[in-house]
Amino acid sequence: MTYCLGVLIQDGLVLASDSRTNAGIDQIAMVRKQVSFVLPGERTITVLSAGNLATTQAVVTSLKQSWSEGDETDLTRAPTMFDVATILCSVYRRILDRDGDYVRPFGDVTGSFIIGGQIKGEEPRLFQVYPAGNFIEAGPRTQFLQIGETKYGKPILDRALNFETSIGMTAKLALLSFDATIHSNLSVGPPNDLLPYRRDSYSVENLRKYSATNAEWSRIRDAYSEGLIDLLSRVPDPAIDPP
Amino acid sequence: MTYCLGVLIQDGLVLASDSRTNAGIDQIAMVRKQVSFVLPGERTITVLSAGNLATTQAVVTSLKQSWSEGDETDLTRAPTMFDVATILCSVYRRILDRDGDYVRPFGDVTGSFIIGGQIKGEEPRLFQVYPAGNFIEAGPRTQFLQIGETKYGKPILDRALNFETSIGMTAKLALLSFDATIHSNLSVGPPNDLLPYRRDSYSVENLRKYSATNAEWSRIRDAYSEGLIDLLSRVPDPAIDPP
Repeated sequence: MTYCLGVLIQDGLVLASDSRTNAGIDQIAMVRKQVSFVLPGERTITVLSAGNLATTQAVVTSLKQSWSEGDETDLTRAPTMFDVATILCSVYRRILDRDGDYVRPFGDVTGSFIIGGQIKGEEPRLFQVYPAGNFIEAGPRTQFLQIGETKYGKPILDRALNFETSIGMTAKLALLSFDATIHSNLSVGPPNDLLPYRRDSYSVENLRKYSATNAEWSRIRDAYSEGLIDLLSRVPDPAIDPP
Repeated sequence: MTYCLGVLIQDGLVLASDSRTNAGIDQIAMVRKQVSFVLPGERTITVLSAGNLATTQAVVTSLKQSWSEGDETDLTRAPTMFDVATILCSVYRRILDRDGDYVRPFGDVTGSFIIGGQIKGEEPRLFQVYPAGNFIEAGPRTQFLQIGETKYGKPILDRALNFETSIGMTAKLALLSFDATIHSNLSVGPPNDLLPYRRDSYSVENLRKYSATNAEWSRIRDAYSEGLIDLLSRVPDPAIDPP
């Protein structure tokens, strides 16, 4: 399984993904699920992917091969992020059409994607591509999108995130959302790739990799975990026995 | 959907369930998902159920009708909680056999159950019945069991619960686990039934119903929610921009 998260905030985007891939709990490998396409100063496009790894790798690698080649799936030529999402979906469906009948006897052939980025002249934008190859866009009221193992990490985002949340706090919430997921589900695991993208930077130099032993992540995780136990001891217990 | 939770602790059991049932988001009703069978001073058996409502009601109502009737599914005659679980499963499978072929064209016919209770001469015990009608028992290392919409409410239990946790703290964690679930998923909703069962009490007089506006639950929810926001502001942010 996989967990990928994209958050749209006033200050930009935060994109995060884990690195675990497995076909059954006994066959576990690490793989990057986050790829960025950059024209410095002009556009950055980051794609997170979940689902059938052969399918999602084929999509991402095709887009890499077409980068700057001038064909119709060349992402350097897409005028808007909406066009980027449309191109990714067309490449994805082409691969589904090619591979589907061969793969389905063995399992699910589909993938899903989160696409975040900014093209000069536009605001930062964030999209989620469904397994069917259609997609939705995030907005200030639907400001985070998740794919893969999404549920364990959702409550903390529902409680604490809004469009005005700072990029540092959002990055912290993303790490804690991953921590909750990793805690509760074996099939999601570090290292986590985290990209806090500042609007109008057109750069991915803020990309961080958090291994399980990363000191900064440990500090955040421990401070949260200890603070939570302390908080729970201070919240009043319900009255148990009848008066 | 539904969320039901059973926790086994040193001091006894905590059993909790929501009240929402729906067939599609537009057809929502409230229903109790928690039923207790009591022989005062001798045994209490509580059944929580999720899944097809006609199936689970048929199981629970059959067991109610057989109570004290002296037939082979009479729970007053079961020598142990293990036998109680075995009887419930046999009733459940009888109903699956009777209804399955008629119901499957319309949807899932199966249910799942949590059974918690104590029979004099035994410790408090807790079981989970799978849709197949087989079951597992909780123990000090697997001390909580969930059915239905289980994921949103799991992280807080994973972080804070252990076998020595007090019954008051466990009841509080159960309420907060439900709060996380209700927050993140429309298909789970109050009122919640919460039964903190003290070992050797053979009574369900501690059963509480928490409506959405219940003052005690609001106090717990608000204290947690405010405390969490405060905690998150104190946990250090990750460094974002490159040095």
